[in-house]
Amino acid sequence: MTDSLDLPNGPWPTLEPGWVWLCGAGPGDPGLLTLHALNALRQADVVIYDALVEPRILDWAPLAEHIYAGKRGGKPSAVQRDISLRLVDLAAAGKRVLRLKGGDPFVFGRGGEEAQTLVQHGVPIRIIPGISAGIGGLAYAGIPVTHRDVNQSVTFVTGHDQSGLTPSSLNWKAIAQGSQVIVIYMGMKHVEQITGALIDAGRPASEPCAVVCAATTGDQQVLETTLGRMAEDIAASTLEPPAILCVGRSVLMRQVLDWQGMLAGERPRNLDPLGRGRPAEAS
Amino acid sequence: MTDSLDLPNGPWPTLEPGWVWLCGAGPGDPGLLTLHALNALRQADVVIYDALVEPRILDWAPLAEHIYAGKRGGKPSAVQRDISLRLVDLAAAGKRVLRLKGGDPFVFGRGGEEAQTLVQHGVPIRIIPGISAGIGGLAYAGIPVTHRDVNQSVTFVTGHDQSGLTPSSLNWKAIAQGSQVIVIYMGMKHVEQITGALIDAGRPASEPCAVVCAATTGDQQVLETTLGRMAEDIAASTLEPPAILCVGRSVLMRQVLDWQGMLAGERPRNLDPLGRGRPAEAS
Repeated sequence: MTDSLDLPNGPWPTLEPGWVWLCGAGPGDPGLLTLHALNALRQADVVIYDALVEPRILDWAPLAEHIYAGKRGGKPSAVQRDISLRLVDLAAAGKRVLRLKGGDPFVFGRGGEEAQTLVQHGVPIRIIPGISAGIGGLAYAGIPVTHRDVNQSVTFVTGHDQSGLTPSSLNWKAIAQGSQVIVIYMGMKHVEQITGALIDAGRPASEPCAVVCAATTGDQQVLETTLGRMAEDIAASTLEPPAILCVGRSVLMRQVLDWQGMLAGERPRNLDPLGRGRPAEAS
Repeated sequence: MTDSLDLPNGPWPTLEPGWVWLCGAGPGDPGLLTLHALNALRQADVVIYDALVEPRILDWAPLAEHIYAGKRGGKPSAVQRDISLRLVDLAAAGKRVLRLKGGDPFVFGRGGEEAQTLVQHGVPIRIIPGISAGIGGLAYAGIPVTHRDVNQSVTFVTGHDQSGLTPSSLNWKAIAQGSQVIVIYMGMKHVEQITGALIDAGRPASEPCAVVCAATTGDQQVLETTLGRMAEDIAASTLEPPAILCVGRSVLMRQVLDWQGMLAGERPRNLDPLGRGRPAEAS
């Protein structure tokens, strides 16, 4: 382990007074921040952050004011409208504003709405993408979101809409038939409905699934289950949101690719979990 | 613009001799590298990189040997099997090996196969996710891959499989009905087939689409078109792969969110392209 690291020579963009940068903080591990995000943290006067932003990341903006704008259970909800207008006000006050969102701002993060409100009010913006938990979080569980012989499409779904309900507009039958791998964000609350809908749509109850909680953080937990058992396995566990649910055979790859388990000294459980022979010989 | 930037204190993991780190380099802009990726570049003895890795990124590993393993038209193809076994050999020789892939290694990147081969040969690995072009590349074009009132699911598809053909296993009808937004990787070659399949499946020919080439790089180009016109518009253009195709109404958000255009002095074309009122008032 080394302790520090110089960033390469830039030029790196300047966060000017009166600007808002909307930035994804990734799924948790501070090492999954982008260089642009770090550059932003270093310059911001104010960081407005979500519940899903790992607290250690804020330590990298020690001189900035930190404003919590989380919208998750327990703590008081900040209404989306208030957050957007707060950003406008801070920019109007000449602050260098960093809006830091968990994951990627444009993947079920309402970043598009915030950005639109800012532009409507004449506030100049920059967008900094982040690693989304449905890709990078699953990778930390050893699950490739796409894998040869498993899927050539993957669908990302949100498990509830703004009202907290399962999105009624979702066509679960088409989703079930369209992608061999389905990744569900914010799906724990309605897991019974969601898994039921997928089974009703023809996905086998025996299909491999994983629940990845607090992905990429020190608290990451992974539950391996099936579509038919997922709801009761979650109910019988102590798992808590935030969680990513993954449905599909690529989950089996965790048996060989659980690199975090291997870092901790575990051995791979199965060198060929999809039973297709060694890929190095197969292609 | 500042010229340099110190990275925060770690600890940062050590890339040990005999290990292979599989790492996503993001869509192009070196600022979209993760901190883990930079840490890896600093330590590697050998970097094996793809065609889609922006050359400037390799400058950040000046002491490492750089090995090209690209698989795109024009240059000779390295067979996947050879790449995987080369990684095994380099690790066996005690090298600190960084396998650098464009975008994210697990999003249509065959990273799962390479990782599996390494584990099968007893090589210790670490996976470092990257920003995928289908999310971050579209964000640089001002297109949110999900947006309220547009979609609560998004499907990512690869436009061709290992054989270079449109994947025959894809159920275009279900994909068309399952997600209001569809993002197609490597879709330019078969754009006529793909758009035709989506129209046959019921998507309107008038549906907004975008083609984003060389996303996030200095050469980024964006074509706005419709599903019905996309193939001929591409044929009439000078656009070249790599490209991301995006199908769906969220493409219209570019009219208000083209922040790169605005950085260059352009004005937003339409402050309310989805015609739903100002989001700040709507929620």
